[in-house]
Amino acid sequence: MSLEPSADLSRLLVIEDPADQRVEPYLDIRERDLKGRGGRFVIEGEVVLRTALSLGRFAIESILIAENRVEPLADLLASVPAAVPVHIAARAVLDRIAGFPMHRGILAIGRRGAPVSAAGFLASMPADALVVVLSAIANHDNIGGIFRNAAAFGADGVLVDAASCDPLYRKAIRVSAGAALVTPFVQEGDIAALCDLLLAEGFEVLATSPSGREPLGDVAPRGRQAVLFGAEGPGLPRAILDRLRTVRIAMKGGFDSLNVATTSGIVLHHLAR
Amino acid sequence: MSLEPSADLSRLLVIEDPADQRVEPYLDIRERDLKGRGGRFVIEGEVVLRTALSLGRFAIESILIAENRVEPLADLLASVPAAVPVHIAARAVLDRIAGFPMHRGILAIGRRGAPVSAAGFLASMPADALVVVLSAIANHDNIGGIFRNAAAFGADGVLVDAASCDPLYRKAIRVSAGAALVTPFVQEGDIAALCDLLLAEGFEVLATSPSGREPLGDVAPRGRQAVLFGAEGPGLPRAILDRLRTVRIAMKGGFDSLNVATTSGIVLHHLAR
Repeated sequence: MSLEPSADLSRLLVIEDPADQRVEPYLDIRERDLKGRGGRFVIEGEVVLRTALSLGRFAIESILIAENRVEPLADLLASVPAAVPVHIAARAVLDRIAGFPMHRGILAIGRRGAPVSAAGFLASMPADALVVVLSAIANHDNIGGIFRNAAAFGADGVLVDAASCDPLYRKAIRVSAGAALVTPFVQEGDIAALCDLLLAEGFEVLATSPSGREPLGDVAPRGRQAVLFGAEGPGLPRAILDRLRTVRIAMKGGFDSLNVATTSGIVLHHLAR
Repeated sequence: MSLEPSADLSRLLVIEDPADQRVEPYLDIRERDLKGRGGRFVIEGEVVLRTALSLGRFAIESILIAENRVEPLADLLASVPAAVPVHIAARAVLDRIAGFPMHRGILAIGRRGAPVSAAGFLASMPADALVVVLSAIANHDNIGGIFRNAAAFGADGVLVDAASCDPLYRKAIRVSAGAALVTPFVQEGDIAALCDLLLAEGFEVLATSPSGREPLGDVAPRGRQAVLFGAEGPGLPRAILDRLRTVRIAMKGGFDSLNVATTSGIVLHHLAR
């Protein structure tokens, strides 16, 4: 592939020193993952960066790519707004910046938007809306998988309680195939308070559980609807299950329950508008 | 928990030297994962070992556990056949044997049964049977997830082509929550040859694809039925899709396809007997 005329090579900023302040946000990526990055998050890989650029929902602060990826990614680079600095580095320098072998060779720093309250988020939903609600989903693979399903089946939004992990954690975004940047979400408070808000906004609230009283087939999509998923193992808190309509997926007796991301796929496929 | 009388402490074989020949099959677990173990496989973790013991489909050659797990696992140990050696080791010795920190503290070596041909496997199926067929599923998380769904929805068997990874690879078993030991499977040959066998045995063969001609809702469970899943990205080969009934899962336009394990969950939920 030849470079498009619009992929201006002169805009590429060559980084030779891993301690260069321009790439400070990319230093020691894994260690920073654990500490959090305040208003920023890391985008990793071509698929996710293309999604972020095409949606434009999050501002991209800067991009850092391996020099051998400049040519294959010429069309992507041509779509990067002129105000966004694009840094390039030799593979060895990139690995030293990131602190581990950066096979994908493409990183970017995104900025979270201004916080939105769960109440405002729900009030803005249309009369026919499907909202996914997550309680204590602490596994990045699972939260990424659930976001991927939410996007695939066109959920209008995701409410995430404070006990769940951050959907914009690097690995969660990657597993979501970028869907964590697609479906709008709010992370706030505890699951009981989120249920109160949903009910006040006129949502029918469904709780999924292996011990749910109704099979999924008995539930129909309708109006404003929210569906809750809890952590594998403990599931949703008893007090939550007691106050809501509970739904189960029929399984063959004798085997362990489904993975929560797969459960969300089956339920959202059924409830999709 | 106190030890049951049947959890005979005197049977525990104490390992103090990581080079002890009795634990040779446990040496350098990750490196051996890559090379394969011939007729053996590694069982890791309490859930999977309990599944293996309760099903009895695979012979267990030996068990190795951390000494601090003897008491919490007394009931499990009491269910281990007397002929199976149970080794215990201090955590540091166990980690040196395995070659990495063995947090779960419980391992076992299983033996694969005598090989069964795909033809014989299919011939033995009942007149009403659901078989899962995997083409080039090379990701251990995905193959584990698909087996978990196959068990949850009571599939009668899984056919795995030679281009897929081994369902008894340590990580695949773990992700399957032990289901790779539950649902019978055969790994053999290429996907075209497997389709020939299925058709010859009177199976309706469905191929899943984002470009499938029929929505899943139009397909009903019936008689002998097989459903094919291909690798994410490339999907099933064109030549396979051209000769079979193809099925798609309706998704919202504009987003990437579903994860293949989630796809299998949705399809098997729909086709379950």
